[in-house]
Amino acid sequence: MRYFVWFGYKGTAYHGWQHQPNGNSVQDELEHALSLVLREPIAVTAAGRTDAGVHALRMAAHFDIQQQIDERKLVLRLNSVLPKDIAVSSVERVADDKHARFDAKWRRYEYRVINHKSAFDYETATFVHTKLDFDKMNEAAALLLQYTDFASFCKVHTDVKTTLCKVTEAHWTQRGDMWVFTIQADRFLRNMVRAIVGTLFEVGQGKMDVKQFDTIIKAKNRSIAGQSAPAQGLFFVDAGY
Amino acid sequence: MRYFVWFGYKGTAYHGWQHQPNGNSVQDELEHALSLVLREPIAVTAAGRTDAGVHALRMAAHFDIQQQIDERKLVLRLNSVLPKDIAVSSVERVADDKHARFDAKWRRYEYRVINHKSAFDYETATFVHTKLDFDKMNEAAALLLQYTDFASFCKVHTDVKTTLCKVTEAHWTQRGDMWVFTIQADRFLRNMVRAIVGTLFEVGQGKMDVKQFDTIIKAKNRSIAGQSAPAQGLFFVDAGY
Repeated sequence: MRYFVWFGYKGTAYHGWQHQPNGNSVQDELEHALSLVLREPIAVTAAGRTDAGVHALRMAAHFDIQQQIDERKLVLRLNSVLPKDIAVSSVERVADDKHARFDAKWRRYEYRVINHKSAFDYETATFVHTKLDFDKMNEAAALLLQYTDFASFCKVHTDVKTTLCKVTEAHWTQRGDMWVFTIQADRFLRNMVRAIVGTLFEVGQGKMDVKQFDTIIKAKNRSIAGQSAPAQGLFFVDAGY
Repeated sequence: MRYFVWFGYKGTAYHGWQHQPNGNSVQDELEHALSLVLREPIAVTAAGRTDAGVHALRMAAHFDIQQQIDERKLVLRLNSVLPKDIAVSSVERVADDKHARFDAKWRRYEYRVINHKSAFDYETATFVHTKLDFDKMNEAAALLLQYTDFASFCKVHTDVKTTLCKVTEAHWTQRGDMWVFTIQADRFLRNMVRAIVGTLFEVGQGKMDVKQFDTIIKAKNRSIAGQSAPAQGLFFVDAGY
């Protein structure tokens, strides 16, 4: 029987989602908690892999088990075993072949930016000291919907078969005193959101104009895009099946 | 010349606002930063004193200095010297006799409650496992506006001259998936908000009815009120002059 577990985590203390030989990962914590509570070794596969310091608001992972599960009770027991910065919201029975990674139709990320020092958001937003022109950044962001090859925003030397993605949403909005970049696509390349946000920062700072941003996408060459934005502002928001 | 400094802090790492002989306090950090940047010993007096683990969104403190100050530059320099969990928002020149503590006409606190485990709010909200009836809690909270003596919610053995306070606001509202208790008064007694919230929890859990809450206020006796709610959910929100 296959189950989906939905959970969120604050990534600050972790070496990313994926199991690491010499560091603690969210995957290790979740597998450890599931194995402990269900009393058998459990392996999980998630909808997406986040890097060190990146957070997740609502991530999905699947796992298989022979026993019947009381879903509500499992949520409570997992939350009491898991560390305080990982929280499970639900567990649900799914079709035996439903795959958290391959069957996700879309994934959604957001990137949070503050323009002033904040005593509360220093681990969950990026503090940009310089002024940013969010109108210009939105103009550039809209261009992402017109292209499908994002090789310019893909980490080099990764073993990826294709750099094609269908971006269906990409915009900056204000939320309280925070600016939030939301991007949704069928799939994301490694480092893609942070590379896009870092390049949009250059547009917002006037170091690059919207036309140059367009040229960068067309070039399909990572070396001409901007630096990656820091991990702490990035959130995996949700996945749809 | 007297100045006001407005700032916020995440209280998790501090032994409260006030200077402690054997622990770090927000006051120590702020005085240290001001003295370092202004190159003379500076002492500050704040609008309110928060306990260990309690946060502040917008706190005021005054200090005196002989030199002329460039307010904007001072904000930037203080923020670069202060730890990441203390952020200054502004510095302003005020009348030489304006007192951050004695001249505050009102102070506002909020208490944040979550009813489920959250990976992000574990240091800035209180997780209540049991179900809470917020309608009943609001009914009880409204009673606070009908009384002026809050001896029942005052820490005993404190050197306080009067237990009279004018409460002008007291209600629970929902903010996203969080419940927030807001209370505004001309002054607050030591431990008052946490004692009120802890007693309201008992109302929300059905351990006490609204009439009993009324009786507790009337009794002016701390020993019959509920336990204090944990520090981590409490925020000093603002002060008005």
